[in-house]
Amino acid sequence: MFNSLGNLLSLTSFGESHGAAYGGIINNFPAGVEISLEKIQAELDRRKPGQSAIVTQRKESDTVKFLSGIFEGKSTGTPIGFTIENENQKSKDYDHLATAYRPSHADFTYDQKFGIRDYRGGGKSSARETINWVVAGALAKQLLPEFEINAYVSSVGEIFCEKPYQALDFSKTESNEVRCPDAETAEKMISKIKEIKKEGNTIGGTITCVIKNVPAGIGEPVFSKLQAELAKAMLNINACKGFEYGSGFCGAKMTGKDHNDLFNEDFSTKSNLSGGIQGGISNGMDIYFRVAFKPVATILQPQESVNKNGEKTTVEGRGRHDACVLPRAVPVVEALAAFVLADLYLINKTRNINNF
Amino acid sequence: MFNSLGNLLSLTSFGESHGAAYGGIINNFPAGVEISLEKIQAELDRRKPGQSAIVTQRKESDTVKFLSGIFEGKSTGTPIGFTIENENQKSKDYDHLATAYRPSHADFTYDQKFGIRDYRGGGKSSARETINWVVAGALAKQLLPEFEINAYVSSVGEIFCEKPYQALDFSKTESNEVRCPDAETAEKMISKIKEIKKEGNTIGGTITCVIKNVPAGIGEPVFSKLQAELAKAMLNINACKGFEYGSGFCGAKMTGKDHNDLFNEDFSTKSNLSGGIQGGISNGMDIYFRVAFKPVATILQPQESVNKNGEKTTVEGRGRHDACVLPRAVPVVEALAAFVLADLYLINKTRNINNF
Amino acid sequence: MFNSLGNLLSLTSFGESHGAAYGGIINNFPAGVEISLEKIQAELDRRKPGQSAIVTQRKESDTVKFLSGIFEGKSTGTPIGFTIENENQKSKDYDHLATAYRPSHADFTYDQKFGIRDYRGGGKSSARETINWVVAGALAKQLLPEFEINAYVSSVGEIFCEKPYQALDFSKTESNEVRCPDAETAEKMISKIKEIKKEGNTIGGTITCVIKNVPAGIGEPVFSKLQAELAKAMLNINACKGFEYGSGFCGAKMTGKDHNDLFNEDFSTKSNLSGGIQGGISNGMDIYFRVAFKPVATILQPQESVNKNGEKTTVEGRGRHDACVLPRAVPVVEALAAFVLADLYLINKTRNINNF
Amino acid sequence: MFNSLGNLLSLTSFGESHGAAYGGIINNFPAGVEISLEKIQAELDRRKPGQSAIVTQRKESDTVKFLSGIFEGKSTGTPIGFTIENENQKSKDYDHLATAYRPSHADFTYDQKFGIRDYRGGGKSSARETINWVVAGALAKQLLPEFEINAYVSSVGEIFCEKPYQALDFSKTESNEVRCPDAETAEKMISKIKEIKKEGNTIGGTITCVIKNVPAGIGEPVFSKLQAELAKAMLNINACKGFEYGSGFCGAKMTGKDHNDLFNEDFSTKSNLSGGIQGGISNGMDIYFRVAFKPVATILQPQESVNKNGEKTTVEGRGRHDACVLPRAVPVVEALAAFVLADLYLINKTRNINNF
Repeated sequence: MFNSLGNLLSLTSFGESHGAAYGGIINNFPAGVEISLEKIQAELDRRKPGQSAIVTQRKESDTVKFLSGIFEGKSTGTPIGFTIENENQKSKDYDHLATAYRPSHADFTYDQKFGIRDYRGGGKSSARETINWVVAGALAKQLLPEFEINAYVSSVGEIFCEKPYQALDFSKTESNEVRCPDAETAEKMISKIKEIKKEGNTIGGTITCVIKNVPAGIGEPVFSKLQAELAKAMLNINACKGFEYGSGFCGAKMTGKDHNDLFNEDFSTKSNLSGGIQGGISNGMDIYFRVAFKPVATILQPQESVNKNGEKTTVEGRGRHDACVLPRAVPVVEALAAFVLADLYLINKTRNINNF
Repeated sequence: MFNSLGNLLSLTSFGESHGAAYGGIINNFPAGVEISLEKIQAELDRRKPGQSAIVTQRKESDTVKFLSGIFEGKSTGTPIGFTIENENQKSKDYDHLATAYRPSHADFTYDQKFGIRDYRGGGKSSARETINWVVAGALAKQLLPEFEINAYVSSVGEIFCEKPYQALDFSKTESNEVRCPDAETAEKMISKIKEIKKEGNTIGGTITCVIKNVPAGIGEPVFSKLQAELAKAMLNINACKGFEYGSGFCGAKMTGKDHNDLFNEDFSTKSNLSGGIQGGISNGMDIYFRVAFKPVATILQPQESVNKNGEKTTVEGRGRHDACVLPRAVPVVEALAAFVLADLYLINKTRNINNF
Repeated sequence: MFNSLGNLLSLTSFGESHGAAYGGIINNFPAGVEISLEKIQAELDRRKPGQSAIVTQRKESDTVKFLSGIFEGKSTGTPIGFTIENENQKSKDYDHLATAYRPSHADFTYDQKFGIRDYRGGGKSSARETINWVVAGALAKQLLPEFEINAYVSSVGEIFCEKPYQALDFSKTESNEVRCPDAETAEKMISKIKEIKKEGNTIGGTITCVIKNVPAGIGEPVFSKLQAELAKAMLNINACKGFEYGSGFCGAKMTGKDHNDLFNEDFSTKSNLSGGIQGGISNGMDIYFRVAFKPVATILQPQESVNKNGEKTTVEGRGRHDACVLPRAVPVVEALAAFVLADLYLINKTRNINNF
Repeated sequence: MFNSLGNLLSLTSFGESHGAAYGGIINNFPAGVEISLEKIQAELDRRKPGQSAIVTQRKESDTVKFLSGIFEGKSTGTPIGFTIENENQKSKDYDHLATAYRPSHADFTYDQKFGIRDYRGGGKSSARETINWVVAGALAKQLLPEFEINAYVSSVGEIFCEKPYQALDFSKTESNEVRCPDAETAEKMISKIKEIKKEGNTIGGTITCVIKNVPAGIGEPVFSKLQAELAKAMLNINACKGFEYGSGFCGAKMTGKDHNDLFNEDFSTKSNLSGGIQGGISNGMDIYFRVAFKPVATILQPQESVNKNGEKTTVEGRGRHDACVLPRAVPVVEALAAFVLADLYLINKTRNINNF
């Protein structure tokens, strides 16, 4: 159903930036999974504001509270309800936005669609919604402990991590503020973000995600191909502008002879331009994809705009905003990838009578 | 539901390359829409094999037969069932593939998932499935006659159409075999494809799609953002490796100041890096996106591979294959875009009580 | 999704009484199931018109043609498409119904909803739609060979089969035209139907369905309780007016002390007023339920009615109609029960990590 | 999706009897609807325990808290999240049920399905889940203010309200503890319940629901017929054993000539055995249906049973239970009816292009 993520395993979520709380319900999470609340909170902490000098200084504890579906440390198979309260609401900061439309935000489109809008902090269009996804993804990770899901910042503006993912040590991703496992590149990225921040400007970038140890067989033949479900999930992230997997847009320049992944006798492939997916179904090789993020639309500089009535006005971001959303988006990308995989993994349990 | 396209308006489809027929059911298509069967067949003709020298020479009439849901030239609001028979099946051509795994095809993954597979012509994994989507898209176009949906080949290998879409005359797209509206670029692309074909090789490329006259308000806030639904649909196309909309991956290199689309007093925007979508909802500007296609995996050259038992073997494409799938994919991209928009357009009819 | 039956295993169907064909798509049927086409056709033959003197004498071969999803006698896990052609269409019989509204039919409501309607033979509202369900159910039965599903006619008008189901020999159900396993009652029912038929009238009745060998655990806790899914399926049958399971409406007169099913030490229960379902989930005991059917609305007598414009008119059924739909509804009830169980059975494969 | 109620308008819910809270998310509720929180709370108060002498004396404030989707007194079109805290938890009362299986409860089936179970107060299988539905239904009622939805207790044990609904004054339903609008019958029912309660026993009954002012056109042709969606919703209520609409099981005894509802010139019908629904679609007449409830399984008397290991044990209800659940089920039936109608009403907005 639309407004839910997932087909069998599903997340239905709610929440607005300056409402009482975010939260969600995870349906069809299997019974009997041991749940570590610490690990879930740890993922939320990777996403939360105020965690470093290069992200927004807004303070939120972002503490998740589970209300159902977990009993004596294990999932019970019944719906898992959770909430995360909004604490640090300064709604007054947004009074001037009740009528003004911020450029490249959703103020105008929400008004056109709904005729009413909680304008405080972007309301429903705020990226704070991704907090729900991190909770869901952290649970999905616990269902699939053998899957290794590692995302990292692979570019900030024009600064690219030139090394292929195979040359990176993912255990270093969390060792710096920008979440790029290559220390040298990370340093350049951090400098760039600080510079941009000082200008009151923002900057975009890309995140690469690599998933190891996925068995062959995950994904569905036609309308729920693994890459299609990943793309849909990623393009729902607020600033996401593009998705590519395996050879991606580069593959579009190649010939078949160069692009084909030849088999080894153990069914692994010599190259992996397929990105671990063939015909929409995992083939056992590493799955990898890349996601593009536009620069955050809120800048701490005056911009010309219009209000509800089409009259000229000026808007200017105030207070605490991200100059670069990439470091905080890393756990979001991982969470969505984990959730998509868990959903298709469960579906796959039903697909072949010889596995019953 | 997975294995269907669409949320409210939905396509459920079936068919294998060498089975009796393809077909599908379109649910929740509104009643009272005048249906031109000629226009539907015309879209199928744009997709069909054998239409020009640069695509596969396989011959299929690809005639759609409607079995329900249309009465006296109008939709009745009940399920629209249709079939397209497979005519030109040379299943013997595929006998050697009953056990051999073709590189970068879905043979191995289907076997892993299902333990059984119709190997003839790729079976379910064949791109012939897209024929169903063209039927569905052609119907969707008739529901939304005011939406102008134009896709075209924007690159083949390293040959790019350098002009922005605004400088192109879409009425020229059908005037050449490769479906690039810029005559000069089209000529280069055609030469390149012919050269590649002669080598028994294949080549990838990109398709750009531009949609005009979409009113503001189409798309849903969280998990059915317009761009997310488009991405999901496109990534289901068989050779698709990536999707970007608006500024796309280029936008990831920019700063917020340069990227923001400032409003005019009529709520149009001075620039359109947003690609006509803000917060997942159309804003009334042109919607545009770009889709990457890898080169076709079947090449007319011997390739080393393995069989079901992990033994070395050689596979070699025989007969009639596309050296470049791009020209035939243009109507597929348009069809999916039309279907996604029609689905979200219908949903939007239910979203605001003031419009009831 | 609405307009489909089933959650994971799903049937999407199409067809109108006097259109070209009926048909459907079964999604997510597991791979590797051996499919007997004979058994499927046998179920269709139990439902088809013209099979005995007490049902409509219309002749249709009702031959199902599978178009995909079955290869070399086994399901492949991909969508199963099928069609059943309409052969014996006498559309002219219905010309007078283009504008007249038949009492207790759907002519008026379809016009109100859709503004257009295929009036021939009732169009979409014809009970011929159930032919699709019988195909789907026959496949579901082959997925669940150990489940014994037996429906039978338990009343016609005021004639009731007074014996409890436990006293009946279901192997006798097919031994008479009315499909009541008690020979004596069957004879009375047949006489009654013949008498009613001679009058040009019709008569209602009930069907009881008993399902043995369902393991404990099938059904979902909240909105897909086993009984709720069964009720929904049954109430979709065209003339169905009611559903009860276990003690049903009689249970509403009882006290808890008398109604409770006490456990034996092997977890079977001493009584089974629960009807094999507790908390929406099967408990391993026999599942049984009863379905009420109103008399067929088309009678071979003149009835006063109105036309589209609200003007008085007279309608009179012509030709070949069922005086009692019950015997032909028996395989429909079984088919739906099988499909619902198969759907929930597959879902249950994903619910407990200890069974993975 | 299973585990949600509704197709377009949907309720996804969570909560266990002795967990922290119940709650849910209502998706696709249209924007711009004025929301009275008082009316919602009033519906909860009709359902809550402790409201009269004939229901459970457990005390819960049952206060709903909305967390999103409502802004300045109106719905915003975004997901409506809500919670209701569990206050009066005496989990110790249930310690003895960690291993014992109560007769005709879901203890055994949950254990079989999930292998783990929150046994306190029945956990997920508790009828306290219906509190979520009352919230959702109360919102649906505000979307459809012109629909008059009235349910009432039409029987308790063998005591029936003999008057047809047309002879009743629904404004009297709330005037007595048992919610039967006929004062004389109500008195008998109350006496009966008090007598049963004194014995530590429980008793079943039926609820009739009547819905006026529904326009023609609501309901879908095949798998979401209005009566099918109503039946599914009702059969999900915890003690529900049966559903019938219009003539129901009585209609199964009738002939077509007597059963058909003849049209008046204004398209109303002279009789209404159809129960306001023809071909799955409302026809503008009163919709009415009847729901059977078994007696509550928990009785305040010792019953023989078994535990998890199949060993004999004795269970005995303690504390505060309903001797008759009917009075408190009245608002639940209304809530589900309202929600089903609102869902199908919204879908109907998309079904006919001439209404766009």
